[in-house]
Amino acid sequence: MNKHSLIIGGAGFIGSNLSAKLLLDGNQVTVVDNFSRGLYVYLSEHIKNERFNFFNFDVAHRQHCMDAFENAHKISKIDEVWHLAANSDIPAGISNPDIDLKDTFLTTFEILIQIRKYDIPVLHFASSSAIYGDFGDDEIYETIGPLLPISNYGAMKLASEAQISAACESHLSRANIFRFPNVVGIPATHGVILDFINKLKINKEELTVLGNGTQKKAYLHVSDLVSAMQLVTTKESLQKTILVNIGPVDDGVTVKWIAEKVIERINPKARIIYGEGAKGWLGDVPKFNYSTDRLKSFGWSPRLSSSESILKAIDEIVKQESVK
Amino acid sequence: MNKHSLIIGGAGFIGSNLSAKLLLDGNQVTVVDNFSRGLYVYLSEHIKNERFNFFNFDVAHRQHCMDAFENAHKISKIDEVWHLAANSDIPAGISNPDIDLKDTFLTTFEILIQIRKYDIPVLHFASSSAIYGDFGDDEIYETIGPLLPISNYGAMKLASEAQISAACESHLSRANIFRFPNVVGIPATHGVILDFINKLKINKEELTVLGNGTQKKAYLHVSDLVSAMQLVTTKESLQKTILVNIGPVDDGVTVKWIAEKVIERINPKARIIYGEGAKGWLGDVPKFNYSTDRLKSFGWSPRLSSSESILKAIDEIVKQESVK
Repeated sequence: MNKHSLIIGGAGFIGSNLSAKLLLDGNQVTVVDNFSRGLYVYLSEHIKNERFNFFNFDVAHRQHCMDAFENAHKISKIDEVWHLAANSDIPAGISNPDIDLKDTFLTTFEILIQIRKYDIPVLHFASSSAIYGDFGDDEIYETIGPLLPISNYGAMKLASEAQISAACESHLSRANIFRFPNVVGIPATHGVILDFINKLKINKEELTVLGNGTQKKAYLHVSDLVSAMQLVTTKESLQKTILVNIGPVDDGVTVKWIAEKVIERINPKARIIYGEGAKGWLGDVPKFNYSTDRLKSFGWSPRLSSSESILKAIDEIVKQESVK
Repeated sequence: MNKHSLIIGGAGFIGSNLSAKLLLDGNQVTVVDNFSRGLYVYLSEHIKNERFNFFNFDVAHRQHCMDAFENAHKISKIDEVWHLAANSDIPAGISNPDIDLKDTFLTTFEILIQIRKYDIPVLHFASSSAIYGDFGDDEIYETIGPLLPISNYGAMKLASEAQISAACESHLSRANIFRFPNVVGIPATHGVILDFINKLKINKEELTVLGNGTQKKAYLHVSDLVSAMQLVTTKESLQKTILVNIGPVDDGVTVKWIAEKVIERINPKARIIYGEGAKGWLGDVPKFNYSTDRLKSFGWSPRLSSSESILKAIDEIVKQESVK
């Protein structure tokens, strides 16, 4: 009997890559998505696979979440839940905190209620480096404190982690909490590369960048992210709640470098116009020194560096956008 | 002009002690409470004070919270908000997570929306040592990690801290986050002493204790808690979010010791019957080594030790219950 994986948010950027990989591995895969960011077309290759099912529900609502789990459970007993549903537009959540409350936190809250009801032993959760807030130059390992997120998105990811941790005390056998870095690749729904490409579509001659371009961040390609998560899920652990930073092993690239690479690809003559300050937007963390020692101790290393991930993603996203 | 302090949850155990103290200090005091635990009688001495106002609203609901702030603002501009509203029944929150979601987290979420609307610069928040989870023998200072709470109550307090931290990035000038220990005193609405006294009311000869009685915890008297909070609020700080553990400076007393002192006071001949295991209930943290170095660095020390606080509280609660 194949393992039955329920992927909430499975039609989004990371979810659709994960669904494809789990199907390839032979799993029974059920995707639940409300298409807030995800698209049905991202799953189009799976539709004919008899091990694949899809349900359109918004799991932040109790009844929808109940229905989603009931439908998935009817297919076969659910062995694991992957929770990848969230608002991924950080600035939107700053101006309207209800978005992160509902899409990023209440999804987690409701999913945990159903996990308890169906006695599902394992949850894999897409958390974020945003839970850490701004530690300046300090190396950010999983046990650092205090945790003072500076965006509502980061706050609601931390709230989710906290609720999952409490669930591990009462009913969950294991939770893998992955603290994601900036992830790039396709299908791109948001992020700096897509933003730049879209801006150049409107004005081919000028690219306006938020902030002064010196923000340096590490980027991981989605293919490396999926392989890292899968590796962690296969490892035995004495702890019920496993926290893992996922990221590349280099120290990242600047926004300026990304902007230059995007114009090189689209219109090398375009001018780049920088804003002021090191922060791109409210809630943006300008500097980030992410420790991936724990992940490396599991025996993982990324295939691509930050710069290689960005270059590959620029290529992929340019193609994605020209097809549209 | 007197400082206008809005106290949410101001009719509860700690809130009513705080309201009394702030009125004594000359503040304009507005209390909002929904009487989930609080009682109007706890505020009865303030009613005739012209600097005191009271409104009955449940701030977890958006419209109620809007109305609460609108009413308070009509009295005079609000200078600071004290947020003490929460579910304080930890086991109840474990069996029904909706309780902590609504009373402990959504109160914070809604209050922050109104704080932003009325441009109120300062929030004082009653957080909890429960956000830390179980660190065994490790000394728990404010910057320890990872934060893996083991109760929904602790999870929703941590969620509240996270949302407040994000608010400090966008609109709040300062937040004092107080991580409370076990607090004792009157008016007692819950807690180990009241439980024991109530059990002995039903059966004078036997006192059944959850767990084996070896759980050792530090206890602070509510009068010391209020003085600690007030001291922190008067200190200047370079940081916007101030995290402070509040607690006595000793290492606490066992549940066994408390049980013995309660029967000494009520019926010295009663038998104490212990349960099994070091945990009193799911989500209970059996051992707790709480650092109060940061609080001491502000120049604070408690008047009463854990054992003195318990003895004083037993006396106070016995009187409270006999009056009823």
